[in-house]
Amino acid sequence: MVNNQTFFNKLFYPKSVAIIGASAKLQKFGSRYLDALLNFGFKGKIYPVNPTTSEILGLKCYKSVKEIPDTVDVAFISVPAHFVPKVVMDCVDKKINFVVVFSSGFSETGLEEGKKLEEELLKIVKGSFTRLIGPNCFGVYCPGGGLTLLPGADFPRESGSVAFISQSGGLAERFCIYARSLGLRFSKVVSYGNALDINESDLLEYLIKDPETRIIAMYIESIKDSKRFMKLIKEATRVKPVIIWKGGLTEVGSKAAKSHTGAIAGKKEIWHAFFRQTGAIKAEGLEDLVDISLIFQLFSKPCGRNVAIVCVGGGMAVASADACEIYGLKVPDFQPETVEKIKMLAQPVGVSLRNPVDLGSPFTPPEAYQEILKIAALDPKIDVLMVLVWHLPLFYGGKTFVDEDFAKKTFEAPIYVKNSIKKPIILILYETPLELEMLNAEKVRREIKNKHIEVGIPVYPNIERAARALTKFIEYHEFLRRNP
Amino acid sequence: MVNNQTFFNKLFYPKSVAIIGASAKLQKFGSRYLDALLNFGFKGKIYPVNPTTSEILGLKCYKSVKEIPDTVDVAFISVPAHFVPKVVMDCVDKKINFVVVFSSGFSETGLEEGKKLEEELLKIVKGSFTRLIGPNCFGVYCPGGGLTLLPGADFPRESGSVAFISQSGGLAERFCIYARSLGLRFSKVVSYGNALDINESDLLEYLIKDPETRIIAMYIESIKDSKRFMKLIKEATRVKPVIIWKGGLTEVGSKAAKSHTGAIAGKKEIWHAFFRQTGAIKAEGLEDLVDISLIFQLFSKPCGRNVAIVCVGGGMAVASADACEIYGLKVPDFQPETVEKIKMLAQPVGVSLRNPVDLGSPFTPPEAYQEILKIAALDPKIDVLMVLVWHLPLFYGGKTFVDEDFAKKTFEAPIYVKNSIKKPIILILYETPLELEMLNAEKVRREIKNKHIEVGIPVYPNIERAARALTKFIEYHEFLRRNP
Repeated sequence: MVNNQTFFNKLFYPKSVAIIGASAKLQKFGSRYLDALLNFGFKGKIYPVNPTTSEILGLKCYKSVKEIPDTVDVAFISVPAHFVPKVVMDCVDKKINFVVVFSSGFSETGLEEGKKLEEELLKIVKGSFTRLIGPNCFGVYCPGGGLTLLPGADFPRESGSVAFISQSGGLAERFCIYARSLGLRFSKVVSYGNALDINESDLLEYLIKDPETRIIAMYIESIKDSKRFMKLIKEATRVKPVIIWKGGLTEVGSKAAKSHTGAIAGKKEIWHAFFRQTGAIKAEGLEDLVDISLIFQLFSKPCGRNVAIVCVGGGMAVASADACEIYGLKVPDFQPETVEKIKMLAQPVGVSLRNPVDLGSPFTPPEAYQEILKIAALDPKIDVLMVLVWHLPLFYGGKTFVDEDFAKKTFEAPIYVKNSIKKPIILILYETPLELEMLNAEKVRREIKNKHIEVGIPVYPNIERAARALTKFIEYHEFLRRNP
Repeated sequence: MVNNQTFFNKLFYPKSVAIIGASAKLQKFGSRYLDALLNFGFKGKIYPVNPTTSEILGLKCYKSVKEIPDTVDVAFISVPAHFVPKVVMDCVDKKINFVVVFSSGFSETGLEEGKKLEEELLKIVKGSFTRLIGPNCFGVYCPGGGLTLLPGADFPRESGSVAFISQSGGLAERFCIYARSLGLRFSKVVSYGNALDINESDLLEYLIKDPETRIIAMYIESIKDSKRFMKLIKEATRVKPVIIWKGGLTEVGSKAAKSHTGAIAGKKEIWHAFFRQTGAIKAEGLEDLVDISLIFQLFSKPCGRNVAIVCVGGGMAVASADACEIYGLKVPDFQPETVEKIKMLAQPVGVSLRNPVDLGSPFTPPEAYQEILKIAALDPKIDVLMVLVWHLPLFYGGKTFVDEDFAKKTFEAPIYVKNSIKKPIILILYETPLELEMLNAEKVRREIKNKHIEVGIPVYPNIERAARALTKFIEYHEFLRRNP
C-alpha cells in the first residue's frame, strides 16, 4: 500500500460499488444490501452483478464485474462460497480496490473444504492490487461516504466520532442499533469476519490517523499478528481511547469463537496483561462497550473520581454509594457550607443531606430541586454530579400528583444545571415498569434521555453501569498522565 | 406474643385501620395513604384521625383514636415526629395491635433530639399490647388482606408467593413496581425502617411458617440481633429460598446506611461468611433480587448446570458462552445425533450447529426454528434451554421482511417448545432500541415477555442476568442437597 489513509479512503468513500449476487429475489442478502444502499442515499454509482438477470430494483444488471464500463472501487460479494474464488479473480482482473466477501462457508466451518477455499482466495488476492475484507463478514458502514454495506438501511445518515471494528457482523449491527439509540454517531464501522487479508491491525492503523474518528471501539475474537497489534494499540491509546470487548475469553467461549470465525481466541491471562500494559479499555460486553463509548463521546475533559449523588430514598442512597465504591469512585463528604445550603432548600425530616443526598420525596419543588443539584455539583470537592431518577412512573404512570410544568422542570433539572455550571453531569434514569399500559412512561423516559444526551449529559439505566463507565473514562485519562 | 402467626395475621389481615395524620390537604402523605387504601378496595373499616377536620374523602374523621367507637387492629401514623409519642400512647391505651410509624425524624437523623424521641417511643410500647413497625418506614402491603399501607394504590390486587421485607421504604416500593411488571406477585411486603420494635427477625420468623409465602426476599442494612437472625435464616433456607440484598457493604455505603435508618451496617467479610454458611442467596442489587425471585417463582423443580444456547449470530454465540461460563454454568457439546438433526433443519452455511447454536439468520422458517429449539432442549446432556432473541426490531422496527404469522411463530417458539416438552426454558429478550419511533417494538417486546412468563418461562434482558439468576437457583438447590 502506498499510503494507508488514501488507500482505505476508497473503501469508505467509494465512487462506485458493485453488488455481486444481487438477484431478482429480493429476500436474498445481495438484494437486501443493494436495497439498503439505494435507500441510504449513496451518491456514487451502483452496479448490480448477476449472470441470470438484466435488471434489479431499476438498475441495469451486469453478467460479471468485467462487463462494467467504469472503474469500481468496492465490490460486495454475496454468492455461494464455491463461486467466490472465481468472482474475486474477476475483481482482481478488474483492479477493484476492495472486495467485501459476505459469503460464509470458509475456515469458520472447520471443514477441510472450507479451509481450502479460503487458501485459494488468499492466493488470488496476494500480491494483487485488490484487498479483501472477510470472508464471512457483514461489511462496511460509513455515513460520511453515504455508504452502508452493513445490513443497515436505517442507520444514521449523519457522521459521528465513534469507529467500530468488529470480527462479528451481528454484533456490529447490534452495536450500531443500540448505540444509535443512545445518541452515538459513527465515523466508520467495519465487520471483518475471518480477517483473511485485511485484519484488525490494518483497520486500526488507519483509524489511528483518521481525523473523523475520536473513539475506537472493537469486538475481537482473535488477533492475526499479535506483535503488530500490540504495537499499534500502544500507539493508538496515546491519541484516542480504544475500547475493546474481547470475545472468547472463557474456554467454552473460545471454542465457540473457533466455529464462528475460525479464530484461536487466546488465553485470558494474556489478555489481562494486554489491557494492563497498553492502556486499552476493557469492555465487559456489548452494553459496556456502548456505555463507555457514550461517556467518551459526551465528556470533553478528564475529570476526577469524586462524585456527588443526589437521589430520592435512603435505600437508594445506600445502594448508590455501594455501587460507586465497588467500581472505584469516591463519594466524599461535602463541605459543611454545601450541607447548610442544601438544608435551606430541602424538606426538614426523613432525609440525609450529606453525600449521597437523599431528598426523601420525589415531590420536592422543582426550583429547589434544581438549586440543590447545582449546590451539590459546585462543592469544590466534587468532580462529577450523578442524578438518580427512578420516580418517573409516579409522575407519568400511575396517579399524577403534580402538574405538567412541575414534572417537566423536575425531570429536566440536570439540563438546567448543565447550562449554568461547567461540571460534568451523569443522569441515571431507571427503567420504567415493563407493563404494556406503562408505555407512556417509557415514551417520556426516551424523551428525557434524548434531551439530556443532546446537551452532553450521558444517560444510564442504573448506577452500576454509570459508575463502571465513568471509572473506565477516568482510568484512561490516568493512564495518559502516567504515560505522556 | 401468644402465637406469632395469629398475632401477625392482624397486621396483614386487619378488620379495621386508623390513618392518623390524614388531612383535608390531599397532598399530605396521610391522605395519600388513605386514598390508596380506599382505591385498593380494603374491605375492613377505615378511620381517619385528625383533630382539626371532621371529614376526609367522605369518611368521618376522629379527633383521636380513643374516640373511635370500635376496636382498631392497625394504626398508620403520619404526623410530625414530636407528636408521635403522644399519638402512640393513645394507640397503646386503645389496645391497638399494630402501629405503623411512617413519620421520620428519629435516630436516623443522627441528632440527639431524634434519638431521645425514639427512646421515648420504645418505652411507650415496651410491655404493652401494641407492637410498632418503623419509625421511618413505608409500611405494609398484603393483597390477600386487601391492604396497602405502602404508597401503592396500583399494586396488584391478586396474591402471589413472594414476600419482601425491606428496611428501606423506597426500595420496597421500587421492588413491587419492577417485580410486578415481570409478573411477580406478592404474599406480604413490609418496609420496617428503623426496626425499633418489630425487626427483620420477627418478620422472618412469621414468614418461615406463612403458607402463602414460598419465596422470601429481603433488603437489609443492619441486623438488630444477629444471633437470632442467623438461627432463623438457617431455619428458613431449609424450607424456602431466602434472597438477601445487603445494603451498606462498602465503607461509604455503610456510612449512608447510618443516616438512612441509623443502622450500623457491619463488615463485608462477616456478610460473605454469613452467605456461605446459611444458604441464603446473595443478591447484588435490586435487579438481581428481582431476577432471582423470578426464576424461583417460575421454576418448579431443581435443575442442573448444563445449558443449550440457541441464538442468531456467531458473535452472540461466543459472548453467550463466555457469560454462561463466567457465572458457573456449562455449555456442553451436544450428542452427535442432536447436531445431525439440527443440521437437517438449519441453513447450510455460515452457522455453527454445535452448542451454542448459531442459526446465522433471524429469518429461519418458524417451523424449523421451533423444531431446532426442541431438539436442542431434548439432548440428554441438556438441563436448561436458553433462547436468545435480539432481532425483534428487525421484524417490528425497521423494514419488515416477513409476514405477521412468521413473526408471531418465531417469537412464540419457546412457548411452543415449553408446551411440548418438560425441560425448563429461559428466554433472553434483548432490549429494543431506545428511540421514540421504536416504541412499537418495545410494545411487542412487552407482549412477548408477558406471554412467556404466563407459561412459566422466565424472561431476562440479557444473558448475563439470566446466567446469574439461574446459577443462584442451582446453587440453592445444591445447598439443600448438601444440608438435608
